[in-house]
Amino acid sequence: MAHDYSYTKQKFKVIGTRPERPDGIDKVTGRAKYGADATAPGQLVGLILRSPHAHAIIKKIDTSKAEKLPGVKAVLTCADLPDLTGGNRDLQNILENCMARGRALYDGHAVAAVAAVDAQTAKKALKLIKVQYKALPHVTDVDEAILPGAPIIHDWVFTRGIDPAPTEPSNISQRTQFGHGDVEAGFAKADVIIEKTWKTEQTHQGYIEPHACLASVGPDGSGELWVTTQGHFTFRNVCSSLLGMDVAKLKVTASEIGGGFGGKTHVWMEPVALALSRKANRPVKVVMSREEVFRASGPTSSTSVDVKIGAKKNGVITAASAELRYQGGAFPGIWAMLGAMTSFACYDLKNVKTVGYDILCNRPKVTAYRAPSAPMAAFGVESTMDMLAAEIGMNPLEFRLKNAAKQGTRASYGPVYGPIGIKPTLNAVKNHPHMRARLGKNQGRGMACGFWFNFGGQTCVDLNVGIDGTVSLTVGTIDVGGSRAAISLIAAEELGIPYEQVKTNVADTASLGYNDMTEGSRGTFSTGMATIFAARNAIEVLRERAAKMWDIPVDAVVWENGEARATGKKHGNLPRLTIKQIAAKAGNTGGPIAGHNEVVADNAGVSFASHICDVEVDPETGATRVIRYTVVQDAGKAIHPDYVEGQFQGGAAQGIGWALNEEYIYGDDGRLQNPGFLDYRIPVCSDLPFIDTEILEIPNPNHPYGVRGVGETSIVPPLAAIGNAISNAVGVRMDHVPMSPPRILKALDDATSS
Amino acid sequence: MAHDYSYTKQKFKVIGTRPERPDGIDKVTGRAKYGADATAPGQLVGLILRSPHAHAIIKKIDTSKAEKLPGVKAVLTCADLPDLTGGNRDLQNILENCMARGRALYDGHAVAAVAAVDAQTAKKALKLIKVQYKALPHVTDVDEAILPGAPIIHDWVFTRGIDPAPTEPSNISQRTQFGHGDVEAGFAKADVIIEKTWKTEQTHQGYIEPHACLASVGPDGSGELWVTTQGHFTFRNVCSSLLGMDVAKLKVTASEIGGGFGGKTHVWMEPVALALSRKANRPVKVVMSREEVFRASGPTSSTSVDVKIGAKKNGVITAASAELRYQGGAFPGIWAMLGAMTSFACYDLKNVKTVGYDILCNRPKVTAYRAPSAPMAAFGVESTMDMLAAEIGMNPLEFRLKNAAKQGTRASYGPVYGPIGIKPTLNAVKNHPHMRARLGKNQGRGMACGFWFNFGGQTCVDLNVGIDGTVSLTVGTIDVGGSRAAISLIAAEELGIPYEQVKTNVADTASLGYNDMTEGSRGTFSTGMATIFAARNAIEVLRERAAKMWDIPVDAVVWENGEARATGKKHGNLPRLTIKQIAAKAGNTGGPIAGHNEVVADNAGVSFASHICDVEVDPETGATRVIRYTVVQDAGKAIHPDYVEGQFQGGAAQGIGWALNEEYIYGDDGRLQNPGFLDYRIPVCSDLPFIDTEILEIPNPNHPYGVRGVGETSIVPPLAAIGNAISNAVGVRMDHVPMSPPRILKALDDATSS
Repeated sequence: MAHDYSYTKQKFKVIGTRPERPDGIDKVTGRAKYGADATAPGQLVGLILRSPHAHAIIKKIDTSKAEKLPGVKAVLTCADLPDLTGGNRDLQNILENCMARGRALYDGHAVAAVAAVDAQTAKKALKLIKVQYKALPHVTDVDEAILPGAPIIHDWVFTRGIDPAPTEPSNISQRTQFGHGDVEAGFAKADVIIEKTWKTEQTHQGYIEPHACLASVGPDGSGELWVTTQGHFTFRNVCSSLLGMDVAKLKVTASEIGGGFGGKTHVWMEPVALALSRKANRPVKVVMSREEVFRASGPTSSTSVDVKIGAKKNGVITAASAELRYQGGAFPGIWAMLGAMTSFACYDLKNVKTVGYDILCNRPKVTAYRAPSAPMAAFGVESTMDMLAAEIGMNPLEFRLKNAAKQGTRASYGPVYGPIGIKPTLNAVKNHPHMRARLGKNQGRGMACGFWFNFGGQTCVDLNVGIDGTVSLTVGTIDVGGSRAAISLIAAEELGIPYEQVKTNVADTASLGYNDMTEGSRGTFSTGMATIFAARNAIEVLRERAAKMWDIPVDAVVWENGEARATGKKHGNLPRLTIKQIAAKAGNTGGPIAGHNEVVADNAGVSFASHICDVEVDPETGATRVIRYTVVQDAGKAIHPDYVEGQFQGGAAQGIGWALNEEYIYGDDGRLQNPGFLDYRIPVCSDLPFIDTEILEIPNPNHPYGVRGVGETSIVPPLAAIGNAISNAVGVRMDHVPMSPPRILKALDDATSS
Repeated sequence: MAHDYSYTKQKFKVIGTRPERPDGIDKVTGRAKYGADATAPGQLVGLILRSPHAHAIIKKIDTSKAEKLPGVKAVLTCADLPDLTGGNRDLQNILENCMARGRALYDGHAVAAVAAVDAQTAKKALKLIKVQYKALPHVTDVDEAILPGAPIIHDWVFTRGIDPAPTEPSNISQRTQFGHGDVEAGFAKADVIIEKTWKTEQTHQGYIEPHACLASVGPDGSGELWVTTQGHFTFRNVCSSLLGMDVAKLKVTASEIGGGFGGKTHVWMEPVALALSRKANRPVKVVMSREEVFRASGPTSSTSVDVKIGAKKNGVITAASAELRYQGGAFPGIWAMLGAMTSFACYDLKNVKTVGYDILCNRPKVTAYRAPSAPMAAFGVESTMDMLAAEIGMNPLEFRLKNAAKQGTRASYGPVYGPIGIKPTLNAVKNHPHMRARLGKNQGRGMACGFWFNFGGQTCVDLNVGIDGTVSLTVGTIDVGGSRAAISLIAAEELGIPYEQVKTNVADTASLGYNDMTEGSRGTFSTGMATIFAARNAIEVLRERAAKMWDIPVDAVVWENGEARATGKKHGNLPRLTIKQIAAKAGNTGGPIAGHNEVVADNAGVSFASHICDVEVDPETGATRVIRYTVVQDAGKAIHPDYVEGQFQGGAAQGIGWALNEEYIYGDDGRLQNPGFLDYRIPVCSDLPFIDTEILEIPNPNHPYGVRGVGETSIVPPLAAIGNAISNAVGVRMDHVPMSPPRILKALDDATSS
């Protein structure tokens, strides 16, 4: 079911159709090459030794025995890596997260690495490395980390964003503030105010494919890296900077990716693999175990968020504020900032203020996770919205509709919106049959809204026409969700040829200009835009070639439906030339036919979603089952609706897991207790209902086809939607995610006993 | 020692320097990935069953037992391949050479193939394939093949180039004729005429790396091919055509190449590997054994050539003619045509005529071998020239100088020469100390000249500037002799930056527009040209970005020494912007900085060489040892002199092997008796002297830097130079190559007994 909110009158021929994605068969038959599938002659096995301490001084690392073990070709510590401490601190942080320098900052922090001829030897070598630690006090909880007397993670971190600048080091790395109006005055006008603290636990992106790479660096400083990543060009630039290599001399090839969701936007052991290879002068392959993935890569923040919203009895919000505390692991991040920006983005607020605190803990460095930081903020805000609606006796959907942002609204994080889809999604929810379905015992329904910015960025596309008129597109954005199919559709649309005539390939970094990574839902938006421009350039060449073949002026040639047509009285009767006919003669008319584009794709277009969720809670066990789920989201023009729907479903599925079960559990010793999929429980197929979707298409006026990013917004509403549904089902308000059986049981008990 | 024949006044900064080639270290340390080094998840081992008959009807192939063998995933015969018999005969010939259809045409001709889980199973499966042959009469000698009653190889071959068209099938697939003037009248004016028949045996390119590929074709018709080749774009187009695939859907990645010399310009088992993969729905790796390489890939022609040259006593040639019979193996070729074109290209002849006959035999399909067909023609012509010089009592060098072609000469194959280097090379030989060195007993000196056309063709280059100002060049021509270093030099020269700041990479076919293969000495010429144009395009972008950074008009910005300089009174004092500074800001000034070029690089510029050779012949054994060798050749501008010299040396080394020892030996049964490097003797290091080189630089006016092709001409003179030296040493004229010990002994015996 798709409404037509089109602001443009474009008619598409292939855009909006649903051909099979080109990587599908390889992936389901096991033929696709993932990160660990690369091989090189003479490759070594690289393994990493990790800290068993949450926080410890590394007094000494004795690698001598490991180095003497036959078959060991290199042993690496921070001493083998550049020390950028006195230089670029951001780079140094990245490097220190990959390999500790002086202190181990979290359980799992890399302290040394080996490269050996086989895994057995490498394991033996790890055991032969003797590290002398001196354990330090640690802190892993976001609220405890800012208590007086908490162990200070870094003595060089002074809270940024505070005036005057603090003189004492702090675990608050940054304070950020957004908003407008006068919240105090606004709250004073409110009839009802709800103020509450909400907490979420740390989750992992949970990609199926662990981090893996094959690195090869030669004595001349040239290197290659085969890696599973969301951004091989970024990896190239980052690794080059970290290791002092020339950008042009490090060729990074991206494998197929077995999930990333933000966790593969950041280097973890790749610089170590490169440095090991450089030291061993052999290719080195490093594949993380699942335990390593959990302990030392990519989780999102645990958070603690205070939300305060006030409204008139008529449902108009008079003020809203939030203080957001985001745990970023052992190195400074910008996660609270993003939470502070997104918190109230769905609403048209006169008085709004958000303050974010990025907080250091003895946990792995946090990285992006799908719409990073937005789900936790939305959990607090959208739960509070429901509580407030209940308090003023208003339907929570109508309450949201009444306050929803619209074109012209000044967003809480600053900009003024163009055409946006929050009201359309709410109206679609209102009209959805799901909202009228009957609920049974212990069942409840909730809804929530979500927002994500979306991002464009630097993008390059080359388009080459083969001798048979088939078209090869060279792109540099990793395909995480079917973007190769979408990009092919766009090229086919622009050239006027069938989808089947186009093949999109992700090039290595040596074969294309720089591309920002696949993040911020930029893939189809930005690469699609560059593809349109590259195709238009190629059409110019095709027209020139047709003109040459006809021996007429190029101005007399138009491009229509994949063919050149001669115009005017003089030439109008010439039979058309197909792209295939023109391509076949390319060698005689000037050489290969191509189009190129390098662009900074700005204005990706914000995206909004409203989700509906039905749950059934077992009051005996506290177990919650999601029994029906509907995602309504504005996609802008949906290039390939299947994969837009897939993104909607995938985000919702991850949000459901996050809401109900997933969490990092740290012991008092600061060590992660559940670094595996048995104890860290992501939803499996049988845990989920079919997730229904509805695509709204509010065109993005800044894209030729009206495309917006679509991949991230869908993970934002589920935490709150499920919380609201649980509240509706069993009458308890859950303020702590995951809303796991023990927490629900406790809430039910507390409610009964109170 | 390099003379300056420069017709231009260009001053180069980095062109002409000798940095180390970027692939060198990987190659000598074993890290380079060659054809057999590719792997894919679930890959199968492909093996090919080959005919033990030189010529036989394939009555039946029973694959049923092989198919039932556990672990066998596909068995393939011609029945699994398209039958293009009624369509494009040229394509069908390629396909039939890869897999026999109905008849086996030579010893080693593929008749079936298997793909199995491992090599052992595949070998077993080959043995289980039962082929019923009916042997047919065969012919393997080029002269015997055109005798009346010789077995006819193909009943559909009627000699082309004869008027009226013949009505009977023939083993002469084509007659070609070149020349001008009136040779009969010319010979009538001659004082002396030498007429003689010369024979050469079939040789193999002898590359160290056997053919190897990894093919993967999915059920959607998309495929990938990793292969050792001189032209992955050509392989893509050919394989796509043969198998009915879309060009854009077959991605071909070229490995490093362990030698090709023309033998890797042609598909052999690659289409079979692709078809096996398509049938098995798994990746399939096929690696030829050395025996397979010899029996069923890439040899050059055996030939029989009649040369007739007449001259006045003053040394002026009055007429020259040649009839050239080139054995092309079991499928039609154009080898005699090339021989006919090159025969007399070194000379300025008023009356000249060459007739070539391409002849079919029951031998493997001939393919290109470095300056294909020219060495055999030169053996006849340059040997005859020496005989004629002797007959008129003239120094053979002076005789050549007197008749050498020059600017304005109408070449025997048609065109009128521009500036060329044959006289300069002869003069350099004349002045070379080698010519005055003393010779000992049984030692002799010979010289000979050689010519090759050189070729340009379709070429694409992308140039991308990294964020640190280092430059990545994406090229599509396989690097067979250091061209990546040469291309980097060209980009550095044009951009005004150091060589070390540039890295050239060979892209896969999905990442760049079409490139003709590395053949015809086109690599550095054509890719260099496209690089120059791509760099100039990038400089335009760099100027625009600098103008944007300065906020001044782009017309006020010039590019100098790798920097942007603002000009004019108003802006002239602005500090210059380096490429690094501009690149660092690219994301803010319009996105990634690139230059692109697609070109048909015409007018590659002919190349001439004169070689000097000293030999010592052991009259007891007939063994000949080359004791000194000097190559003088016109390279046009030598971009990277080391690799130009390397080409000179490599061609000479191959020519020496061909001249003295290498030959295909067929038994009466039509089977190859020496398919291995033990019995087919290529020269090893200890067989060769240091080969001295002298580069002449007669600029090619059709290239911005004056570059000519350099790779091929150097193999043309050695056969004759050595023949002439042997004649000088021991007084016998060798008319049959290889001039192996038995043949020399026999000639010495014949001379003594006559």
